[in-house]
Amino acid sequence: MSGTKSIHLVDTTLRDGSHAISHQYTAEQIATIAAGLDAAGVEYIEVSHGDGLAGSSINYGRSAISEEEMLKAASSVIKKGTLTVLLLPGIGTQEDLEMAIHYGAKAVRVATHVTEADIAQQHIAMAKKMGLKTFGFLMLSHMASPEKIVEQAKLFESYGADVIYVADSAGAMLPEDVKARIGAVVNTVSVPVGFHAHNNLTLATANSLAAIEAGASYIDGTCRGLGAGAGNCQIEALVGVLNKKGYQTGVDLYKIMDVAEGLVEPIMHRPQVVRNSAFMLGYAGVYSSFLLHADRAAAKFNLDPRDILVELGNKKMVGGQEDMIIDVAYQLAKKRGA
Amino acid sequence: MSGTKSIHLVDTTLRDGSHAISHQYTAEQIATIAAGLDAAGVEYIEVSHGDGLAGSSINYGRSAISEEEMLKAASSVIKKGTLTVLLLPGIGTQEDLEMAIHYGAKAVRVATHVTEADIAQQHIAMAKKMGLKTFGFLMLSHMASPEKIVEQAKLFESYGADVIYVADSAGAMLPEDVKARIGAVVNTVSVPVGFHAHNNLTLATANSLAAIEAGASYIDGTCRGLGAGAGNCQIEALVGVLNKKGYQTGVDLYKIMDVAEGLVEPIMHRPQVVRNSAFMLGYAGVYSSFLLHADRAAAKFNLDPRDILVELGNKKMVGGQEDMIIDVAYQLAKKRGA
Repeated sequence: MSGTKSIHLVDTTLRDGSHAISHQYTAEQIATIAAGLDAAGVEYIEVSHGDGLAGSSINYGRSAISEEEMLKAASSVIKKGTLTVLLLPGIGTQEDLEMAIHYGAKAVRVATHVTEADIAQQHIAMAKKMGLKTFGFLMLSHMASPEKIVEQAKLFESYGADVIYVADSAGAMLPEDVKARIGAVVNTVSVPVGFHAHNNLTLATANSLAAIEAGASYIDGTCRGLGAGAGNCQIEALVGVLNKKGYQTGVDLYKIMDVAEGLVEPIMHRPQVVRNSAFMLGYAGVYSSFLLHADRAAAKFNLDPRDILVELGNKKMVGGQEDMIIDVAYQLAKKRGA
Repeated sequence: MSGTKSIHLVDTTLRDGSHAISHQYTAEQIATIAAGLDAAGVEYIEVSHGDGLAGSSINYGRSAISEEEMLKAASSVIKKGTLTVLLLPGIGTQEDLEMAIHYGAKAVRVATHVTEADIAQQHIAMAKKMGLKTFGFLMLSHMASPEKIVEQAKLFESYGADVIYVADSAGAMLPEDVKARIGAVVNTVSVPVGFHAHNNLTLATANSLAAIEAGASYIDGTCRGLGAGAGNCQIEALVGVLNKKGYQTGVDLYKIMDVAEGLVEPIMHRPQVVRNSAFMLGYAGVYSSFLLHADRAAAKFNLDPRDILVELGNKKMVGGQEDMIIDVAYQLAKKRGA
């Protein structure tokens, strides 16, 4: 491995981090943090509702300010970095993307469930036509085999994606799981490959390093790890670790440390520690929306909700299948009783 | 790697964790936590002042209760696990060890600076004679080369140590640093080898896995990572990760999660997150006592204290050399000005 390999960092404090503060970023906070990240040399600065453009809703949680205000606040201060937005097909539309471009977005990450790359064909083509740097982003990648992920990555590439991301949205992967998936994609597509970690198993930094070892050149992180549940890869620590390993990121370590402690930490609602519920999501590899349902089903059948979560993970249940949880709990209780 | 390899876990919540609560454990807290760890199946339960037997002092911080009370509280509830104490030659004495045995200690970890194993010869021999399982524990192991550590480990072995530990006391190692050191020791000594991680670089779990890959079979951790600075390896997460990897620890995951969240988290003084000062200790590889001195010297010479810490790390300065910090800062300022 060359000691001077460059890693492109994407800071998603102002997108994934918004989950952890109930999408309550103010325009001033966005401007201050985006300016700090930009001055620190962060290459991609992602700003959107946690669920992407147009995510602000009763379902996903309302943002404190409009998307226009968010992007305006960021683009007014970003001088060198690339203002990036997230778009989930089915939530964000062409109009949202046009708005984002109008307010300064230069890149978009089009995200789908790991097995549904095909629903992004039009969005990726459209984004490319609009002149945006376009990322294809596979969420909950722990749920698919390396072979399946390669197939999906090839679809993204055929649609014109400039970068393909493998995202461990549930923080469920071990380093070897990351290496297998990233390595398989790197060996197949000709575009750069990225990795997005969550810290549910306390392995976010380790998994990011594993991704780099397997050939990834784009890595996500957030200041102080701010993000849903266990949070993301703590970007200022990642920058320091990459420095120690001899990688170039273009990011000034002390400046990004100061953004994390001086600007982000003070607005956090809670410290980004790995508590039991977040750990279980990663351990079982399930959706956060399953937690409450598992608790209810556990009470009904006198089970430990953690056993239900593990069973749901084994069955590879996905979001939208919450009504099946009672049935899974019933089967589990029957098996226990037998 | 066999899927059924056994890992011996040492929980040091009630020893290393005491640093993080200013050594204020009550007898009741010790009894409750030790009972929980024991019921969860933890093999070794370490209970001592953070700096070992007789550490309670003006210098190191006074414990809330006497060592006798601490050990009595723990041994009165431990049924299966091994009550373990820490002893630093120069602080703890033969009398302290006799007291610990009287109150139920069955194992001792004799800890020295990584280059000073020779000061432990009498203590290890004495502990073995008293019938204790005896660990030789090399602190701040990032400061010595694998070759030096092998030399020191051989000394411990020659004194009769049953297990030899490599401790990353400053949380300064990358996984490859851990592998190099543990691997070298494993290939040289015939006794089992252990690893003690700190999380300053957010790599405590990853480094513990690296140690196991390199042949370590004893691993330390604490509930919720409770420990000085960035804290230790979060033991309940480690248990889960080892489960996922197919290792046997004898520890019930849910039970230790419940100890962490139900008993340890409520008494923590602050969440165990990686803030900038703790990160810098790991990044620079220096003593925590250097922080304040570096801040003062930085103010005097108009420097960033972080640059001073990195320089101190490069010079491999050790505790007791704090008076040299002003000189290092002066040289740094002169170089900057030149």
